[in-house]
Amino acid sequence: MTMQRYRYNSLSPDERMGLARRPFAETESLIRTVSPIIEEVKRNGDDAVRKYSEKFDGVRPDPVGTDPENCSSVLPAEQSEALELAARNVFRFHREQVVPSLSVETMPGIECRKETRPIERVGLYIPGGTAPLPSTAIMLGIPATVAGCQTIVLATPPGENGEIPPSIAWVAKKIGAKTVVRAGGAQAIAAMAYGTETVPKVDKIFGPGNRYVTAAKMALQQSDAMVSIDLPAGPSEVLVIADSGADPRFIAADLLSQAEHGPDSQVVLAAIDGFNTDVLLNELELQTAALPRSAIARQALEESFVLEVGSPDEAIAFSNLYAPEHLILNTADAADLAEKVQHAGSVFIGPWTPESLGDYASGTNHTLPTYGYARMYSGVSLQSFQKSITFQTATSEGLWNLGPTVVTLAEMEGLQAHARAVSIRLEKLEAEVESSKKRVRNKRSGG
Amino acid sequence: MTMQRYRYNSLSPDERMGLARRPFAETESLIRTVSPIIEEVKRNGDDAVRKYSEKFDGVRPDPVGTDPENCSSVLPAEQSEALELAARNVFRFHREQVVPSLSVETMPGIECRKETRPIERVGLYIPGGTAPLPSTAIMLGIPATVAGCQTIVLATPPGENGEIPPSIAWVAKKIGAKTVVRAGGAQAIAAMAYGTETVPKVDKIFGPGNRYVTAAKMALQQSDAMVSIDLPAGPSEVLVIADSGADPRFIAADLLSQAEHGPDSQVVLAAIDGFNTDVLLNELELQTAALPRSAIARQALEESFVLEVGSPDEAIAFSNLYAPEHLILNTADAADLAEKVQHAGSVFIGPWTPESLGDYASGTNHTLPTYGYARMYSGVSLQSFQKSITFQTATSEGLWNLGPTVVTLAEMEGLQAHARAVSIRLEKLEAEVESSKKRVRNKRSGG
Repeated sequence: MTMQRYRYNSLSPDERMGLARRPFAETESLIRTVSPIIEEVKRNGDDAVRKYSEKFDGVRPDPVGTDPENCSSVLPAEQSEALELAARNVFRFHREQVVPSLSVETMPGIECRKETRPIERVGLYIPGGTAPLPSTAIMLGIPATVAGCQTIVLATPPGENGEIPPSIAWVAKKIGAKTVVRAGGAQAIAAMAYGTETVPKVDKIFGPGNRYVTAAKMALQQSDAMVSIDLPAGPSEVLVIADSGADPRFIAADLLSQAEHGPDSQVVLAAIDGFNTDVLLNELELQTAALPRSAIARQALEESFVLEVGSPDEAIAFSNLYAPEHLILNTADAADLAEKVQHAGSVFIGPWTPESLGDYASGTNHTLPTYGYARMYSGVSLQSFQKSITFQTATSEGLWNLGPTVVTLAEMEGLQAHARAVSIRLEKLEAEVESSKKRVRNKRSGG
Repeated sequence: MTMQRYRYNSLSPDERMGLARRPFAETESLIRTVSPIIEEVKRNGDDAVRKYSEKFDGVRPDPVGTDPENCSSVLPAEQSEALELAARNVFRFHREQVVPSLSVETMPGIECRKETRPIERVGLYIPGGTAPLPSTAIMLGIPATVAGCQTIVLATPPGENGEIPPSIAWVAKKIGAKTVVRAGGAQAIAAMAYGTETVPKVDKIFGPGNRYVTAAKMALQQSDAMVSIDLPAGPSEVLVIADSGADPRFIAADLLSQAEHGPDSQVVLAAIDGFNTDVLLNELELQTAALPRSAIARQALEESFVLEVGSPDEAIAFSNLYAPEHLILNTADAADLAEKVQHAGSVFIGPWTPESLGDYASGTNHTLPTYGYARMYSGVSLQSFQKSITFQTATSEGLWNLGPTVVTLAEMEGLQAHARAVSIRLEKLEAEVESSKKRVRNKRSGG
């Protein structure tokens, strides 16, 4: 197996930056490609979804949206038990992400609060392809139930028989989805964004997908559909940091578990001096040969690289530049090293934590920022299914304390009506004080 | 003053939905307008920023980006004290939004964590216009400092003398901004997104602005600039709910404090039976006449409407359909009513809490979702300046417990290399168990 090899301390800052850069993705032309599909679904609803499903997937789903109860979800016990355990761990981790209401008295008489509310209607897209992906349905569906989203819509491409896979239907029932959309691609995304005769309109769309799905999400998030999206998505990635104590067979298996996703998967190994890269490359060769998806993995690996580094700190420095979706720390000091991670989607610590654990069942979410977006985006979490609202209450005393400051600031900004909304209230308070003083005086002189 | 008037229970669901809909904003053509500016700033840096600043604002800033120490920030004591108090309240409320690290043992030997990290480099856009807006600089800058963002860049259009207003410079110094960008419009947004000779490239751009600024943010968030944005922005809005106990003079002042923002400001009054709308309309006339921005306010009010409702619950039902940026509850049961709010940016409870308090100094953030986006977006908060990373650590026992489930799920999804990354580790554990058994047997037979 050949992988490109670089030495960290022989590279200039610009060259390091270059290695951290992903291949350019052309979104504009993709958006132009999906726009007519979106427009047609907006206008013609289910008919348009059926038309494009037939064109791209060779099936005409009818009805497009249906109750999950109409879908077969029979699975071998081993499979349903595995899904059950994964769902339970994901539930446990996301349930603990509930943040209590916050209440702060910022000054006497001024109370500020922050509370969360569920996003009412959410659409979950589960890609199709060579095999169904029930794990993605769990990763999106379980947090939606924890958040308390009222309407969950789940879309996935149907098989040749027009039905969705039983494993996806199993999860749809588990999460109480209201509607299953038997369609994929831009047409399914558009159906959830605008709503159709059989598909409820949603407020936010989640889930990975091919570049047409991603382009549709991006186009819709700034359209008249009034819908937001979870993340900008790109090809999946892993960066592995290995030192002399790491088993090259484990490292090879971890690199391959990323490489098998697709020929455009990004795979990087930061090998700390002492790690035996030659043994690794040999292992990669052996393990690749045994894979059903070896051609895909081989293509991905040929675009990937090994970066030789002199220390764990150099490795982390590059990782923070690269901002990987997945970061595996297979080093003696992995737990300490994790503290230095500034930008990553999810981190896998120590020799017994392959990325696969998080992909399926450790409890963390596998919907993560790719393409370097871990610099500024979080992966999907409970918070992705909620929004927060702030509340404030001023007592008359609070307004008395804070009002004059607000009048000064509003006048600085030339917004007299803003100032007036405060001063008209201060005047009423003053008048009340005056009239009560008068009452006291009258009482005194009278009594 | 004339305002359109409707009666809630005479409207069909479709008509209610129609009232809740905002005027359509054409983003696509705006994006086409700003694209050449963005491209030129990407290519030519500061020169392009200067060119467009001269074209649109009549000034040629040189240098474009500068240290805040080079900007005059002398203010009258009353003004700097007001800014200081506002900053302190905003700091207090946002500091309490810090969420501690989360650690959950989802099953024996599997630890999952969620931690936050600051977004490293942030760009804050402060619009210009008739007067500087130091309050917006506080609302964006203070949370950035609480989050620990390393590089804060602040952009605002310069005055005729090429300098930024002293009040903005005052805040820039207060928040430790690294660079002040003396430019506005799409050219300033592009400068922060790509970086120029004097402007550091940022990871996320915050702040309101005119439609060209908004279009530039939207175009850049899905470009090769690798930048995210805070919120889709639109014209500012308020929905006021008033009952018979509400003082019509307060209500008029509150409606006007929104209406003075611009002719496209959205102003809605939900008047519960018993509230005297005729007195209100008269008050509106009187107060409008006294405003310096009366022409703007009058235009906005003519596009606005009063919705007559039979009860607080009807009012909240419409408010949740409308999803206002600002919601003022001026009713006897305001605190209870607040519990029923599902979709809003920020809520102002009771007679002594005008919106102006939150706009400037209560402590809540005034950067809020407009246009109905409160259904799925939160306002700016501490979390807007952070992202979260998940971590997981499996012990060998943890992998032993969870591994077989992951193998089953990976095989269901046809991802053999994912399964292999687990099974290769399980085999090593088995081998270790076997060899330790052997050692025990050998010891027994030997000893």
